[in-house]
Amino acid sequence: MNHLVNRRICFARRPPGQPTADVFTIAEGEVPLPGDGQILCRNLLVSVDPYLRLKMHDRESYTPPLEIGEQIPGGSIAQVVSSRHDDWQEGDLVAIPGGWQDYAIVLGKVATRVDRERAPLEAWLGPLGMTGYTAYAGLLSMGQPKAGETILVSAAAGAVGSLAGQIGKALGCRVVGIAGSDAKCKTVVETLGFDACVDYRSSTFEEDLRAVSPDGYDIYFDNVGGRISFCVQKQMKLFGRIIVCGLISQYSGQNDLDPKSLDEYMRWILVRRLAIRGFIVSDLARNHPEFHETMAGWLKNRQIRLETTLYQGFGQIVPAFLAMLQGQNTGKSIIRIAEAA
Amino acid sequence: MNHLVNRRICFARRPPGQPTADVFTIAEGEVPLPGDGQILCRNLLVSVDPYLRLKMHDRESYTPPLEIGEQIPGGSIAQVVSSRHDDWQEGDLVAIPGGWQDYAIVLGKVATRVDRERAPLEAWLGPLGMTGYTAYAGLLSMGQPKAGETILVSAAAGAVGSLAGQIGKALGCRVVGIAGSDAKCKTVVETLGFDACVDYRSSTFEEDLRAVSPDGYDIYFDNVGGRISFCVQKQMKLFGRIIVCGLISQYSGQNDLDPKSLDEYMRWILVRRLAIRGFIVSDLARNHPEFHETMAGWLKNRQIRLETTLYQGFGQIVPAFLAMLQGQNTGKSIIRIAEAA
Repeated sequence: MNHLVNRRICFARRPPGQPTADVFTIAEGEVPLPGDGQILCRNLLVSVDPYLRLKMHDRESYTPPLEIGEQIPGGSIAQVVSSRHDDWQEGDLVAIPGGWQDYAIVLGKVATRVDRERAPLEAWLGPLGMTGYTAYAGLLSMGQPKAGETILVSAAAGAVGSLAGQIGKALGCRVVGIAGSDAKCKTVVETLGFDACVDYRSSTFEEDLRAVSPDGYDIYFDNVGGRISFCVQKQMKLFGRIIVCGLISQYSGQNDLDPKSLDEYMRWILVRRLAIRGFIVSDLARNHPEFHETMAGWLKNRQIRLETTLYQGFGQIVPAFLAMLQGQNTGKSIIRIAEAA
Repeated sequence: MNHLVNRRICFARRPPGQPTADVFTIAEGEVPLPGDGQILCRNLLVSVDPYLRLKMHDRESYTPPLEIGEQIPGGSIAQVVSSRHDDWQEGDLVAIPGGWQDYAIVLGKVATRVDRERAPLEAWLGPLGMTGYTAYAGLLSMGQPKAGETILVSAAAGAVGSLAGQIGKALGCRVVGIAGSDAKCKTVVETLGFDACVDYRSSTFEEDLRAVSPDGYDIYFDNVGGRISFCVQKQMKLFGRIIVCGLISQYSGQNDLDPKSLDEYMRWILVRRLAIRGFIVSDLARNHPEFHETMAGWLKNRQIRLETTLYQGFGQIVPAFLAMLQGQNTGKSIIRIAEAA
């Protein structure tokens, strides 16, 4: 057992802008034995998430900066290899904060059980995992949508956005997406069932946004920030709600706004009496005990689709992360690095 | 009766920036007789308010643009001259939307009774009027302050700000003000009882803000917008609340922010999970039925002081308005244009 080799992806340097592969380095070493209360797990499915880009800046954020040399964290679906915790035994399937590595040792109490009968393994990183809970609890707690309202979702083809929109539909709302290409917009409408989707790269973006919902938007579920947020805000209805879930367009330090944009933004907050709230998923961790049940039901009756961009092999973790930051994924990006025994 | 002369201040032209006296013109005419259900009132005390500046722009706001030639609206305390409404008789004192004129005809049902026994006439335009309700309902409904929290108030020497801070103190909070001179800061602390006050014109404004509350601020009651809002936002505590009541620093089209300011602003919304809400007083009109009772109690036991900048004479209405826009007032600006009979 302690002759297993563990590959770990570590943080090599802070990227000045859009990250490239040389931000990371791979360390190899032996797999240690689990201590008391711990379990040793083999990672099967690895998650790559936008918040990791925020951790690469050396500045205050909702998540502490990565240290140089630190192993990259992240959620994973794993199989227990050996256990020194009463709840778990060899072969169990678990969701853990396993990070970008082959094997992870975690406290048994932080693992949660993954039930393949209920939903495929991928779903436990997507709709039934942190991604799904972010969309679900964010939309319900912060946005308080009512049936018949119109919800706008940015990064609508992305992991959280695709779910936020489908949840909105399941709750009886009209849902409009924003995505970055014709092909994505087509997927968002035809596959994911949004009522409409607008391409933010189009020169007529603002007019298109207005055309698909001339009365404006009640809720904006924002995953991107930047110029898109600025454009959307003017189209919010009176007493509209803006949920700031992420600002992925800004994570690498981009900037394409004019100097008056904050003044304009504040002006619309007042004119339209908007409510704007930032949140991260852990803020809402104790809310919505019905989440798993409800989401599993929606998956079962296909009101929510399991939309993933699936990569194969350990070597694809970094490329998958870089592709996601550039918006090349549809749905949740998942890397399969091993099969369940 | 129909030989009374009425002077009315009307809107002559849209100011490109900071308004000057030539924005207004005076029209004279006979006073008409009240119709059925109406009352004719003589204005005694006239109110000038920052939202009038917003009405001078020809663009969407929470209040429709003034038409050229339109009479300037505003709250007033008045005395009934003749009544064709059952609730009112000659000599009654009322609060009405009387505008900037000597005599006003309004529907009897929009007038509210002013009780001089309960509080002086000025108080019915200030703490017991729209100004007081804006501060009270805004702070309570939007900010939900808890005793022991720290509230920051901009335009702390102004009409709404001076009340918002005093209400915060009455509710058991620690209250810090922002004002535009040493003299104002002194008034805010020594007369109005704030715990501290910071001069935004100081070169050490941001450090001063931090020094008086190193742990940050739970609530920011914002009356000014612009650069001050931008600086304050970084000092909000986790889950802080920003109440956007007004943006007076921006109403004349000023701008002193850099292009990254909106991106930075959004970033702090997410990092600190802030809630930002815009409101206007009419949104909250049905809340807080206890308002008059509570505020009258605070005035009586001197937890709230009646702070006014009082002008004398019809000719002072425009100068009082212009001075207020430039921050030359302390507390509520009121112009006495007649004495009660």
